[in-house]
Amino acid sequence: MQNSYAIGIDVGGTNTDIGLVRDDSKIVSRSSIPTGNYSLLEPYVADIMEQISAMVAQGDPEKGVKSIGLNELTGIGIGAPNGNFYTGCVEWAPNLTIKGLLNFEEEFHKYVSIPVVLSNDANAAAYGEYVYGGAKWMDHFIMITLGTGVGSGIVVDGRLVHGSTGTAGELGHNILIPDGRRCSCGRKGCLEAYTSARGIVQTYTELRKEKGVPAEAAHMAGWIAPAIEDKDITCKMIGDAANAGDPLAVETYRKVGEWLGLACANACTFSAPQAIFLMGGPTKVGDPLLIPLKESFEANLLNIYKGKCEIRMSQLAANEVAILGAAALIRLKTTK
Amino acid sequence: MQNSYAIGIDVGGTNTDIGLVRDDSKIVSRSSIPTGNYSLLEPYVADIMEQISAMVAQGDPEKGVKSIGLNELTGIGIGAPNGNFYTGCVEWAPNLTIKGLLNFEEEFHKYVSIPVVLSNDANAAAYGEYVYGGAKWMDHFIMITLGTGVGSGIVVDGRLVHGSTGTAGELGHNILIPDGRRCSCGRKGCLEAYTSARGIVQTYTELRKEKGVPAEAAHMAGWIAPAIEDKDITCKMIGDAANAGDPLAVETYRKVGEWLGLACANACTFSAPQAIFLMGGPTKVGDPLLIPLKESFEANLLNIYKGKCEIRMSQLAANEVAILGAAALIRLKTTK
Repeated sequence: MQNSYAIGIDVGGTNTDIGLVRDDSKIVSRSSIPTGNYSLLEPYVADIMEQISAMVAQGDPEKGVKSIGLNELTGIGIGAPNGNFYTGCVEWAPNLTIKGLLNFEEEFHKYVSIPVVLSNDANAAAYGEYVYGGAKWMDHFIMITLGTGVGSGIVVDGRLVHGSTGTAGELGHNILIPDGRRCSCGRKGCLEAYTSARGIVQTYTELRKEKGVPAEAAHMAGWIAPAIEDKDITCKMIGDAANAGDPLAVETYRKVGEWLGLACANACTFSAPQAIFLMGGPTKVGDPLLIPLKESFEANLLNIYKGKCEIRMSQLAANEVAILGAAALIRLKTTK
Repeated sequence: MQNSYAIGIDVGGTNTDIGLVRDDSKIVSRSSIPTGNYSLLEPYVADIMEQISAMVAQGDPEKGVKSIGLNELTGIGIGAPNGNFYTGCVEWAPNLTIKGLLNFEEEFHKYVSIPVVLSNDANAAAYGEYVYGGAKWMDHFIMITLGTGVGSGIVVDGRLVHGSTGTAGELGHNILIPDGRRCSCGRKGCLEAYTSARGIVQTYTELRKEKGVPAEAAHMAGWIAPAIEDKDITCKMIGDAANAGDPLAVETYRKVGEWLGLACANACTFSAPQAIFLMGGPTKVGDPLLIPLKESFEANLLNIYKGKCEIRMSQLAANEVAILGAAALIRLKTTK
């Protein structure tokens, strides 16, 4: 039997990952371009198409396929921030350097005549978890993705919630702390402002200043070099420091866990999911985040949901689930 | 053609309304018993059954039906706080004087052999709005009910969201203000603590004390008699005072509107509904609530949802939609 192939594209604020996916869910080849370098859709899609053309030209050596025609692909599935399933457009995504209403579907159709399906990047991740990962047997679950931003994909009765607009499932912009920290979306107090990579760095530097610890003395565990300025501190550095016992980094993740646990408890009042899955860079720190998160979740959970919803890590690698989920979205095309 | 009849029951924290509903959605007769007088399920259901027996014995004079047999009814539909669609039980409802896990379905089946369907009271209201009211043509909407408590019913893709537990859609227990006001559920900061009838009274008395206004001088519009103690002030009095221009009452509803508007904006990040409907006693005040509510909603709404979701009042009378919605729930029986 001959295999079929699709393209899965994960549009992140920092990088865009592109994968050629075989129908047995194997990523045959993959590539990446820096999203942040683009301010216009046309050259961005042109460069993605260049990557795709190179991939299909190489074919699938493992299966003895020498090359694949662009229009022989099953389709192109795209997970993108503020991606609208119904319109095929990305709508004013705060975390992208390419601004405005971006018609991805139309732009890709300048190059190919195959189906192009777009959804929220977190919806794609949720769908990937549903098809390939830990949510295979669940009818009700939520995926929360932490990264440059905070996204979510919500599955109710076995179906992705797209809502009346096609852009449902933006729990990262649920206002967690009224009149709180400024968010990238322009409003205040969103979950994203507290639990995205940049929110975590902000919490760390705020805590340090609050405690009057000079930057040079703060990084006692040695994970963050004394000479590094606040602006150059990354979420990964803080995570490593937390795992090495640095008190400021531990306290940072304790606060992040408390906020995220509250947000997860609030999400249960909506759809009473069987599980809330987490994925993305900031979750890789492990226990310094997960222990306070689970404590806060239990403490803030309405009693009728206690013992009925679990916090779980995605069972697929963060970069793999996004590409696979995006490619899987093509199956939804018929319900459009 | 002969008509068929069903019973719709709306279990409120204060009163339980019971209606005999004809299949053309006419409430043939109705009755009420005070829920708060009961601490056990058995006598409560026995008294409801007494009311039902009296109603069916009277038949439907308008249609020349002299009496209806109990087991000739299509079914009994019940909307109750924390009502679980899957199990037929009310589960530890904080606003009921009857505590614990209450198997309504089983208890009613001691008297009748017809279908008994239970759901959240707010789910029943949402379903009533969907079948008979302003949401007839909407696939995505939310109903928020204000009363002794605050409930919600969520419709996604034309279906009530019951979640994995059967008890989804409890936006009244979404934590709006972390570590905020104590709620009846034992936690802090829930929407219900701020926008239920008792939350509104609490805001009024807090504002009065905050401003150092003695109780006797506060009620300048004359709607709240000077001699009335804080504990005897009702939400209705404050509503009337607000409409008469009493500054404290106006400010109370402004704050309530701001909180509810924020909660509605947050709900949009979940399911991107076409509309959020409101019903219940505290909403009857009108503009003093609705104007600040809509302002707050717009101010707190994520830009991608702007202009795409409306705040609307239920198109059915609060007490009618609940009975009709409860009776309509019987149709869901087959999907159980």
